[in-house]
Amino acid sequence: MIQGKKVLVVSAHAADYVWRSGGTIAKYIKNGATVKVVVLSYGVRGESNDLWNQEGATAESVKSIRSGETTAAAKILGVSDIEFWDLDDYPMTLTKELEDRMVRTMRAVQPDIIITHDKIDVLNPDHNQVSDFVFRCSIMSNSNGVRIEGTKTTKQMRLFGFEPHQTELSSYVPGSFIDITEAYEQKVAAMQCFKAQGHLIEYYTQRAFLRGNHARRISGNKSYKYAESFANFFPVVGEELY
Amino acid sequence: MIQGKKVLVVSAHAADYVWRSGGTIAKYIKNGATVKVVVLSYGVRGESNDLWNQEGATAESVKSIRSGETTAAAKILGVSDIEFWDLDDYPMTLTKELEDRMVRTMRAVQPDIIITHDKIDVLNPDHNQVSDFVFRCSIMSNSNGVRIEGTKTTKQMRLFGFEPHQTELSSYVPGSFIDITEAYEQKVAAMQCFKAQGHLIEYYTQRAFLRGNHARRISGNKSYKYAESFANFFPVVGEELY
Amino acid sequence: MIQGKKVLVVSAHAADYVWRSGGTIAKYIKNGATVKVVVLSYGVRGESNDLWNQEGATAESVKSIRSGETTAAAKILGVSDIEFWDLDDYPMTLTKELEDRMVRTMRAVQPDIIITHDKIDVLNPDHNQVSDFVFRCSIMSNSNGVRIEGTKTTKQMRLFGFEPHQTELSSYVPGSFIDITEAYEQKVAAMQCFKAQGHLIEYYTQRAFLRGNHARRISGNKSYKYAESFANFFPVVGEELY
Amino acid sequence: MIQGKKVLVVSAHAADYVWRSGGTIAKYIKNGATVKVVVLSYGVRGESNDLWNQEGATAESVKSIRSGETTAAAKILGVSDIEFWDLDDYPMTLTKELEDRMVRTMRAVQPDIIITHDKIDVLNPDHNQVSDFVFRCSIMSNSNGVRIEGTKTTKQMRLFGFEPHQTELSSYVPGSFIDITEAYEQKVAAMQCFKAQGHLIEYYTQRAFLRGNHARRISGNKSYKYAESFANFFPVVGEELY
Amino acid sequence: MIQGKKVLVVSAHAADYVWRSGGTIAKYIKNGATVKVVVLSYGVRGESNDLWNQEGATAESVKSIRSGETTAAAKILGVSDIEFWDLDDYPMTLTKELEDRMVRTMRAVQPDIIITHDKIDVLNPDHNQVSDFVFRCSIMSNSNGVRIEGTKTTKQMRLFGFEPHQTELSSYVPGSFIDITEAYEQKVAAMQCFKAQGHLIEYYTQRAFLRGNHARRISGNKSYKYAESFANFFPVVGEELY
Amino acid sequence: MIQGKKVLVVSAHAADYVWRSGGTIAKYIKNGATVKVVVLSYGVRGESNDLWNQEGATAESVKSIRSGETTAAAKILGVSDIEFWDLDDYPMTLTKELEDRMVRTMRAVQPDIIITHDKIDVLNPDHNQVSDFVFRCSIMSNSNGVRIEGTKTTKQMRLFGFEPHQTELSSYVPGSFIDITEAYEQKVAAMQCFKAQGHLIEYYTQRAFLRGNHARRISGNKSYKYAESFANFFPVVGEELY
Repeated sequence: MIQGKKVLVVSAHAADYVWRSGGTIAKYIKNGATVKVVVLSYGVRGESNDLWNQEGATAESVKSIRSGETTAAAKILGVSDIEFWDLDDYPMTLTKELEDRMVRTMRAVQPDIIITHDKIDVLNPDHNQVSDFVFRCSIMSNSNGVRIEGTKTTKQMRLFGFEPHQTELSSYVPGSFIDITEAYEQKVAAMQCFKAQGHLIEYYTQRAFLRGNHARRISGNKSYKYAESFANFFPVVGEELY
Repeated sequence: MIQGKKVLVVSAHAADYVWRSGGTIAKYIKNGATVKVVVLSYGVRGESNDLWNQEGATAESVKSIRSGETTAAAKILGVSDIEFWDLDDYPMTLTKELEDRMVRTMRAVQPDIIITHDKIDVLNPDHNQVSDFVFRCSIMSNSNGVRIEGTKTTKQMRLFGFEPHQTELSSYVPGSFIDITEAYEQKVAAMQCFKAQGHLIEYYTQRAFLRGNHARRISGNKSYKYAESFANFFPVVGEELY
Repeated sequence: MIQGKKVLVVSAHAADYVWRSGGTIAKYIKNGATVKVVVLSYGVRGESNDLWNQEGATAESVKSIRSGETTAAAKILGVSDIEFWDLDDYPMTLTKELEDRMVRTMRAVQPDIIITHDKIDVLNPDHNQVSDFVFRCSIMSNSNGVRIEGTKTTKQMRLFGFEPHQTELSSYVPGSFIDITEAYEQKVAAMQCFKAQGHLIEYYTQRAFLRGNHARRISGNKSYKYAESFANFFPVVGEELY
Repeated sequence: MIQGKKVLVVSAHAADYVWRSGGTIAKYIKNGATVKVVVLSYGVRGESNDLWNQEGATAESVKSIRSGETTAAAKILGVSDIEFWDLDDYPMTLTKELEDRMVRTMRAVQPDIIITHDKIDVLNPDHNQVSDFVFRCSIMSNSNGVRIEGTKTTKQMRLFGFEPHQTELSSYVPGSFIDITEAYEQKVAAMQCFKAQGHLIEYYTQRAFLRGNHARRISGNKSYKYAESFANFFPVVGEELY
Repeated sequence: MIQGKKVLVVSAHAADYVWRSGGTIAKYIKNGATVKVVVLSYGVRGESNDLWNQEGATAESVKSIRSGETTAAAKILGVSDIEFWDLDDYPMTLTKELEDRMVRTMRAVQPDIIITHDKIDVLNPDHNQVSDFVFRCSIMSNSNGVRIEGTKTTKQMRLFGFEPHQTELSSYVPGSFIDITEAYEQKVAAMQCFKAQGHLIEYYTQRAFLRGNHARRISGNKSYKYAESFANFFPVVGEELY
Repeated sequence: MIQGKKVLVVSAHAADYVWRSGGTIAKYIKNGATVKVVVLSYGVRGESNDLWNQEGATAESVKSIRSGETTAAAKILGVSDIEFWDLDDYPMTLTKELEDRMVRTMRAVQPDIIITHDKIDVLNPDHNQVSDFVFRCSIMSNSNGVRIEGTKTTKQMRLFGFEPHQTELSSYVPGSFIDITEAYEQKVAAMQCFKAQGHLIEYYTQRAFLRGNHARRISGNKSYKYAESFANFFPVVGEELY
């Protein structure tokens, strides 16, 4: 049951959460979940290649464009709770202070589910770092002995990893396919906010179709038209075999 | 929802399904699922070492004891539909005729879930063969072009693999933990039918405790006292992240 | 240099070589290579689900349609040398006699390159068997002591594996990307011959786009618009680092 | 303590046991172990390429040369108990009757240690088959229910795998290094019996040096000059950490 | 021969060395080895969840309890040489100064064997860090060019890794099983010192039974009742096949 | 075509590039490539064990010898562009400033190919760090948004990894074999400059022979006498199947 679930999404750069989990986010919100998105950086150095080709581009102008794009995309997905940490990227430096801040965030959200980058992205060192950062912060957040004034220890949550761009080279194995048919239009619209990355819009639109095909094939359920896939950080635990 | 689910369990030898999935079977039946068990052999050659130490043991006497034990265990678990194929074991020969029989069985059951041996058991060649046999039969069963008079093609079902005896050496990774707290007593009672394998009763009783500990730790759900784990042959596909 | 290269393609079913290597085949032929295709079965049982839904379908009618489709596709790709072994599929039985026949075929072709199924296709047991069959026949073909009247031992050739349908679940890792931009139209036209498999046409059309994106990203070469990927059975050996 | 140990070596072809374990065999014999070697085939088809280049070579002439060579090599290593099963190779067919024969052999020897091919040799299908054959026979040999008149069930023995020719491509990982310094001269002399395979003599002579270097580096023991490595089929079990 | 061996055990938190190697430590000491234990932290933040639930708990009170418990446990195991570095945990920061200290410690001990955390513990980032820390310090300690006044370069020692809590999820593979039957009572008594972790006492008591079962099965040695397992950082090197 | 290619080699210590890629470097230079070598440290602490055994050795005297040796070796290989960063080793600290310097170096060279340490060297932490350092710098160098005055963004280059010393333990898999027959004499002469490491000269001389054997076997090309192997960081991308 999606209704009432609390979800925390942590995105290294301004558009990662849209390409890789936009459909799932929109679906969750539509069905009554609470979703908070933390965007660690605007991706000014690492993921704005085309914007820098514009005459007179500066770090500030690029950041401003990225910020506008991701804000618009979040709105289309229905995300009302989004936070920008405005870190530098390429490289990204994740200090103890930022660990503390992330633990506070987790304890404020008390998430059932955390979605972030998967462990390996063979083409993006920031993604690997963020994956490890979120994971170790979740361990600390869950630990009763990590005392932070005014916070409440979280219960062990479930963690899921985004698809990296080149899955096979990154040893990515899908653990979960989510049917996003009902949120597909929203995802496509949200992706179109990132005007300077037209090739990725087409790429991730096709990916939704491809994963929909996979989801149908593996489940025998013909109603799944579009899907997103995620890596499972942990086995499924519960009352029955899903 | 377990209610109404159809489950097919395929066990290489007479006790495998009890050690490795007895709790899940009992729980599913108790909650309204239909479970059919196919026992391919009585394990006379490969899994009856102690029985052969009894004076005057013969293949027939061993088989008769094993048959009685597994029938009693099935009854305790609530299994009313159990089929014995009485194949030789060590080695097990799985012919095209047996493939045909298994496809017919699958098409008769129309299972949502199949539970059988996982892909690798480093200490038991029969288990490996049965895993592969069940898997390829499931593919044929699902294929519309495999025409067998009087049968109806199955829909892609979900497959799950038993824990092998020595998990780490067999590259076994749990994909699903099932809380069997409500069926634990039944499982223990069913295991106790296998009198000549006392060391395994203790072993798998402890395993239920161990997996219960793991299930709690990973889920944060303190109510899970005993659990069984299974390998997932496929990713989870559905409407939400489990 | 493609000019003068001899290529042997071995396909388990009637359409496999088109979906997975149609662009590479067409490109090689266009650039002066000699390509022979061996189609082991028509895929009547395993890969003709939709054809069986047609009223009055029989094994013969299905085979006849598949045969027509693949012949038309081969023609579009420029393949003039194609051989149909007409084996049963699902399951496929690869006997010693067929090993002998395949060794003779290899020795007649004297291929520089063999393209066939990769080692693991998690959803198709025939593909796995064919991969192993072709590989062990290549070893025998290369062995001077495997004496077959009228044949000449082959030199060690290079082997490449097709992409399976669900790559990550099959542990598929691309070893080579081939730019098929110049043969893309041919590939699409060839795929359209398989009328009952419309969903796969769309699927593999998108895959060419996806692999083109990957190829550009990894190579920095912007001219690659469409690509096919293959697994490498062996490391690259040569005069320089490719 | 080597003294009194019983070792069974199973070699797919006439020279495998010499290249890959000749030093260990000689050392074990010299130090009081009993070693039995079973050579499954003479390698006429798969491992006698150069002999077939001799004018007028026939299967019989090749076999006769290989037989003479391996007999001479065994003598140099001190092996007095060697058995030739004279099977065909490339491909090798390992029937139920041969399984029965191997189980009888194991039960006659009652080995502490079995040395045979490791699980994967990416360039030699016979080696893979023999590895699996020996392994499953060992399981049957140890099983009390596998009743064979006049034989006595074996105790679980330790299994070790030969280095394949191209280790990294075959996923070979050394589990044990054996110092063969005292038997090195014997190994080199034994290898020199295989006159038509001069390149392999040099190759495996260098390998003894290479593995000696590795053994010194990992152990800190400077006295190891030459070594052989083996894969461990099972973890080490015992009274202390080796 | 255990007699005279020098062992260094490095434990991230106050109880790790007891749960995972208490039996082996006690056995080694009983049989004449010298064992030094270094405990890097008291586990105040990461491994004292239940203690923090006590009314009025503070970092100091928790530390004091943990310190008392581990000191008592060490005594029961026979450990007379134990050192507490009192680092913070969750997260643990392992600086260059600590590397220097660890290298000095290794050079003072001149260990034959080092036992510490294995490379991956999927649920505990501190364990991963300590594993890497100990390993790189061992490399430096062995290097003649790492000049530290008053120290003597160590000889390459053997390294072994503790079992993590959830072995399969952590890619843990046992490389060595140690029979701890003679030290089992001591291990149980030592574990009982950690009063606030009752669930782990039961858990690791059962694990000794489970690993005893595995050890018997793999070795054929029926006298092994209880065992501990360890990962091997390196292959076994020596005069014979263990 | 080697002619005109630009190659950047990054070596953790003074001799790494010679042992592992000396033949390829010499061959590339001989055939018209431009090769720049960056040596990060002289290996004073980690790779000069024997030099420290000389009476009166100091960090300065060891560095001076290593510097002379590597300069002489580079000259023999034909390397005219070599840069020494003179970092400390064991451990090596790779700061943001050094990242910046490496990105500048890459942008100055504009390499087609980068050769450096492969991802895992199980016996040398410096090698692992350098591999990761070079990789993440290459990602930054290629990124248009990483603005450094006076530099020009690089195009995605190809990366290759050196063989580590103990390949199988380091999960090293050769992706490319380069025939170095024409440069073999140069490589041997260059290695002989490292007088205090006589055992490695013999070791890597044999490795060239071993890899030559492998290269012949896999390619069927008998002219390859000596070879070097490298790991491929990325798949091969191009116009044909190599």
